[in-house]
Amino acid sequence: MPELRKDPVTERWVIIATERGKRPYDASEIAHSWAENDHCPFCAGHEHLTPSEIAAIRDPSSKPNGPGWQVRVVPNKFPALGIDTPLAKQGTGMYDRMTGFGAHEVIIECPDHTQTLHKLPIENIKNVLAVSQNRIEDLQKDTRFRYVLLFRNDGPQAGATIAHPHSQIIATPITPKRVKEELRGAETYFKLKERCVFCDIIDEEKRIGERIVYENEHFVSFCPYWSRFPFEIWLLPKKHELNFYSSRAHLFEMALALKTTMEKLSQVLNNPQYNYIVHSGPNMFARRGYWQTIQDDYHWHFEIIPRLTKVAGFEWGTGFYINPTPPEDAAKYLREANVFV
Amino acid sequence: MPELRKDPVTERWVIIATERGKRPYDASEIAHSWAENDHCPFCAGHEHLTPSEIAAIRDPSSKPNGPGWQVRVVPNKFPALGIDTPLAKQGTGMYDRMTGFGAHEVIIECPDHTQTLHKLPIENIKNVLAVSQNRIEDLQKDTRFRYVLLFRNDGPQAGATIAHPHSQIIATPITPKRVKEELRGAETYFKLKERCVFCDIIDEEKRIGERIVYENEHFVSFCPYWSRFPFEIWLLPKKHELNFYSSRAHLFEMALALKTTMEKLSQVLNNPQYNYIVHSGPNMFARRGYWQTIQDDYHWHFEIIPRLTKVAGFEWGTGFYINPTPPEDAAKYLREANVFV
Repeated sequence: MPELRKDPVTERWVIIATERGKRPYDASEIAHSWAENDHCPFCAGHEHLTPSEIAAIRDPSSKPNGPGWQVRVVPNKFPALGIDTPLAKQGTGMYDRMTGFGAHEVIIECPDHTQTLHKLPIENIKNVLAVSQNRIEDLQKDTRFRYVLLFRNDGPQAGATIAHPHSQIIATPITPKRVKEELRGAETYFKLKERCVFCDIIDEEKRIGERIVYENEHFVSFCPYWSRFPFEIWLLPKKHELNFYSSRAHLFEMALALKTTMEKLSQVLNNPQYNYIVHSGPNMFARRGYWQTIQDDYHWHFEIIPRLTKVAGFEWGTGFYINPTPPEDAAKYLREANVFV
Repeated sequence: MPELRKDPVTERWVIIATERGKRPYDASEIAHSWAENDHCPFCAGHEHLTPSEIAAIRDPSSKPNGPGWQVRVVPNKFPALGIDTPLAKQGTGMYDRMTGFGAHEVIIECPDHTQTLHKLPIENIKNVLAVSQNRIEDLQKDTRFRYVLLFRNDGPQAGATIAHPHSQIIATPITPKRVKEELRGAETYFKLKERCVFCDIIDEEKRIGERIVYENEHFVSFCPYWSRFPFEIWLLPKKHELNFYSSRAHLFEMALALKTTMEKLSQVLNNPQYNYIVHSGPNMFARRGYWQTIQDDYHWHFEIIPRLTKVAGFEWGTGFYINPTPPEDAAKYLREANVFV
């Protein structure tokens, strides 16, 4: 099983897949796994190629692990972290490690290999989002998990190894570094202002207007003032909500905002490869005391990143990003793109 | 000129190139600039294609900005940050920004377009390192700079836009986030143990042995216990040294260690594209009070990262890395590679 190891200087954790030590790195292995339709484990009719399903939206007359589904959630066959590993923290010489305990699930978004998430009808996108919300909420019941991340890799440059539309969920036994930075930043801001920093950002962006991409009654998307990447987009609920699954009342507007925003991005950049991540609140059931006040401070959001630039030495060495496209320009192109949703 | 903008949540700074707002992102522009030999601005005889040189190692009979050089340092023609911009900090609505003040220099490592840094004779590598040390030391005299980073992008996947062997230096008016994390981590460790964390890591790696790649009297390279990437390698002076330019006494051993390590990497992974960065101490002349104690805590080092895996949604969303190659395996292959230096 994989193990977690801690950088003794910066306290960053790394997942080391200790069991996979093959003769030097074989890139062809990944290229190969970009499976064609007829070998794709996520296609309808190939349900036997995945582990047993955890959840699904399917025809009432159909059976689990057979065809007849619209959305299907299965454990990742090659998990980064394993649910069967007991959670244990150990020292080794001067270093710290942890067993590779965690959960890694795949949300297969539609039966059709050649589809694209944002081309699906709104009703189907709603279902994908609803199933994802349920999985996150369910995983948070396990208090060994400190955090649950939903993310989507679209295209090989974005790290996807399978073309069939899918997103992923990873639940981790520690709060990840970047999430902790956001939580702490939001907490600091709240202490100073007694307001949520994300709520303030939404107000500011609406006031300025020039970085807004799309807006409906309950959701807004914009290119952040501090965009790290060209055409980076954030998508948030307008009303303060801690968790992704707190936003169940307005799922139609969420699906509409996601579909419209992604259609615009797709039109302006000609179907770019991209990642998105959903930063939801931390697991309040784990270490309840520590995050007890975060309810008012933190605000869940999508971060959408088209893969256009290469991260190079300067970015690795500093954590600075160089963005050649001002977000005001990116937002203008996206706002002006006419899409039919 | 570019400007710096601050993420109001995590306090990460981003360089936004506000003047370059072109119609959607043109990837061909970067591909195009992978200049062929006859248009390469870094080749001998093409000195008029770069801004005037800042430093050079050249034949005593040759003239600046003409042929006859072995190493040449010039300002970057398309700087991420500009030396002519006055440093000013401003608010804009709820956000913070800074003018894009800084320095961005290119170290042209040899006159020959088709060479590779680690294939150069040791004497030439020594000269490249010595010139880099001088530039960093010189830039730190400007107290407006908080940090000076040396880095190298090799190959288009590593973010290089010009094939001719070169490395780069960027001096920034703020201490970059990742550097600050290392400085703070080293400081915390020192407070607890009264020892440098990097010195302890070197001792521990020598004791264990299985992650060592190469070692000579004054330098050691190893795959860190917490390697974020397959075949990640760190290279450090064995004796405690704060700054890259503090290591002038053993430049031969440094060049030998770098050449041997890179030759091994090159042999095992068949000339991978890579980045390396040099993390040297912060600018002690700027904000002397704050970093006054860092002399004993921090230890300069190379971080060498071959570009084998794609950073995907999970890494962006969490700051966790998934490394499929245990550093013990990587180090074994590298240690066993026979290279003739």
